[in-house]
Amino acid sequence: MHCLWLEKQTLEFRKDEPVVKPGDREALVKVLLAGICSTDLELVRGYYPFTGIPGHEFVGEVVDSPGDSTWVGKRVVGEININCGECQLCQKGMIRHCENRKAVGIHDWNGAFAQYLVMPMRNLHMVPDQVPDEAAVFTEPLAAAYEILEQTSIEPGDRVIVIGAGRLGQLVASVLKLTGCQLQVVVRHQKPRAMLENLGIQTLTPDELDNLKFDIVVEATGSADGLSLACQHVRPRGRIILKSTYKGNVKVNFSKIVVDEVSLIGSRCGPFVPALELLSTGTVDPKVLIEATFPLERGLEAFELAGKPGVFKILLKP
Amino acid sequence: MHCLWLEKQTLEFRKDEPVVKPGDREALVKVLLAGICSTDLELVRGYYPFTGIPGHEFVGEVVDSPGDSTWVGKRVVGEININCGECQLCQKGMIRHCENRKAVGIHDWNGAFAQYLVMPMRNLHMVPDQVPDEAAVFTEPLAAAYEILEQTSIEPGDRVIVIGAGRLGQLVASVLKLTGCQLQVVVRHQKPRAMLENLGIQTLTPDELDNLKFDIVVEATGSADGLSLACQHVRPRGRIILKSTYKGNVKVNFSKIVVDEVSLIGSRCGPFVPALELLSTGTVDPKVLIEATFPLERGLEAFELAGKPGVFKILLKP
Repeated sequence: MHCLWLEKQTLEFRKDEPVVKPGDREALVKVLLAGICSTDLELVRGYYPFTGIPGHEFVGEVVDSPGDSTWVGKRVVGEININCGECQLCQKGMIRHCENRKAVGIHDWNGAFAQYLVMPMRNLHMVPDQVPDEAAVFTEPLAAAYEILEQTSIEPGDRVIVIGAGRLGQLVASVLKLTGCQLQVVVRHQKPRAMLENLGIQTLTPDELDNLKFDIVVEATGSADGLSLACQHVRPRGRIILKSTYKGNVKVNFSKIVVDEVSLIGSRCGPFVPALELLSTGTVDPKVLIEATFPLERGLEAFELAGKPGVFKILLKP
Repeated sequence: MHCLWLEKQTLEFRKDEPVVKPGDREALVKVLLAGICSTDLELVRGYYPFTGIPGHEFVGEVVDSPGDSTWVGKRVVGEININCGECQLCQKGMIRHCENRKAVGIHDWNGAFAQYLVMPMRNLHMVPDQVPDEAAVFTEPLAAAYEILEQTSIEPGDRVIVIGAGRLGQLVASVLKLTGCQLQVVVRHQKPRAMLENLGIQTLTPDELDNLKFDIVVEATGSADGLSLACQHVRPRGRIILKSTYKGNVKVNFSKIVVDEVSLIGSRCGPFVPALELLSTGTVDPKVLIEATFPLERGLEAFELAGKPGVFKILLKP
C-alpha cells in the first residue's frame, strides 16, 4: 500500500508497504481522509522519537474485521490511545492515560497517512450518516477541545479568553461558546478573526488585552510566550487550561501562581462520543477550517504547507 | 516602643518608634507572641521590597479600640490581608486577593515584631480561652495549611504526599491527616521524622519515593527541586498543590503536565475560623514546632537562627 513513512526525522512517500492482517479484536480500516496536526509536524521535527507511519486524525471504512463482520462497510473514526486494559490506570477507567499505551501514528502503532491502518475494535466509533468525511476527520481534535469541558466547569458569565486562533484554538472556541460564557479569542491576523467572527465569537488583538483579567484562560498556541501571556491575564483564583505541548522546559513565575492561587490544568485527548454528537447535530461545523486537500502521493508537499504560519487544516486523501 | 525595623534588606532593633493611635475601625494590639516565618526571612533577603516593621504571625491583646470598647482586654489573632472592600475581587468575596490589599508586616502595613501593632477591627478574631498563646501564634500558618482543604477535595483513600517536612510541611501534614487520606511526608532528617511519627504520620526518604505516584502532591519546600520532584511523582490526572513561593522563574516540563493532564494549584493564605477551631479542640497542637522563644531585643539573633536549615519555629516575645 501507499503511505508516508517517518524515520530519523525524515518523511518519505512509500509505495509498497505491506497491508497488515488484523487480529481477532482488530479491524482493517481503509482511510478515506486524514488530517495533519501540529503533533505530526513535531514528530517530523524530532520532538518525539517515532519510526513508522504517522497520522492520528482520520475517517475510514472498515474493510476487514475478523472478530465481528457486522462492522465491515461501516464508516468509522478511531480513538488514538491504545490501552492495555490491565494497568492500575486502565482499571480506574483512565484508559487514555494507560501506563503501557501505544498511540496511533505517534508511539508504537502505525497511523493513518496510508491507504489502510489496523485499529483495535474497541477504539472505533461509527460515524453517523449525516456527518460527511470532511467533518468526521475532525473528530479527534474536536474531542481534544471538548476535553476542557470534562475537566472544569465553565458557566455563563465566566470571562474566558482563548490564546491562539489556529487549528486547535478555533475548535476550542467553538466548543467553549456552547457554555454561554463571555468568550473572546486573541487573534493577530485577519483570516482567523474573520472565521471566528463568522461564528459570532468576539476577538481581541494582543494590544487590546491591556490589563484585562479573565476567569479562565485557555493556552492553545504551543509557545512559551502564550503561556506567559496566560499567566499575565488570569485573575486571582482563576484557571489556566494548557491545551498545547511545549518543546523542552518552560520558565514560569510560580510565585505569582501561588500568591494569586491560580490553577493550571493540563488538557490532552478527549471523548469521541460528545464530539461526534456535536458534528452530527451540526452544532460545530469544522469544515471551514480546511485549507487544502492533497493526495497521499503529495504528502511531503502537504506537510510543508501545513507547517507554514497561518495555515489551517491540511487533509490527505489516500 | 521597641520593634524590629527592616530597611534596604537590613534588619535592626529600634527602641523609640512611636506607638500609632488606632482609627475608628482599628484596634491597638499589644503583641504577646510573634512567629518568624519563611516570608520574613525572604523579606530580609530582599525577595520583596518592604520598609517597616515585619511580622505577620502573632497573638496579642487589644489595649485600645476607639470604635468598640468591648474588644479591650480580648486576646486576638489577625488576618494579614488588609482589603479595600471596594474592588471587584472584594465585591466577589475574594477579600484575601483584594487588588489594593496591604499585608501586615509584608506590604505597606507595619507588623508584629514590635510591642504594639495597629490592626483593622474586621481582621481580628478572638482567641478561645483554652488556646494558649504558644498555640494561638500558629493560627496564621495553620490557616494557610487549611487553605488546601478549601481549594480541593481530599478523600479517604487518596494517596497524598507532602514534600517538605519543615515548619509549613508539618502543619500541612497535620491538617491533611484529618481527611483520612493515605498520607506520607518526604523527610531527610531524623528530627522532623520523629515529630511526624509522633503524630502517627508515615514518612518516606527521597530514595524511598522510587517510582511511586500519588493522587495529590503538596509542594512545601519552596525550592525548584521540590517542584520538580512533585511533577515526577504525581499520577496522570493528579493534583500538585503549590504551598510555597519561589524566588525568580522556575523551569518546568509543561509537556508532561499537559500529556498527563495534571492540575497545579497555587495556595496561599487561608481561613482563620477553622484554624482556631482546630486549635481550640486540640485537634492540631502546633506547640511541638516551637524551637525557641527570644525576647524582641534579641530579634536579630532570632532571625539568624530561624534561617538555619532544620530549625523549626522561632518565636519573639516583646
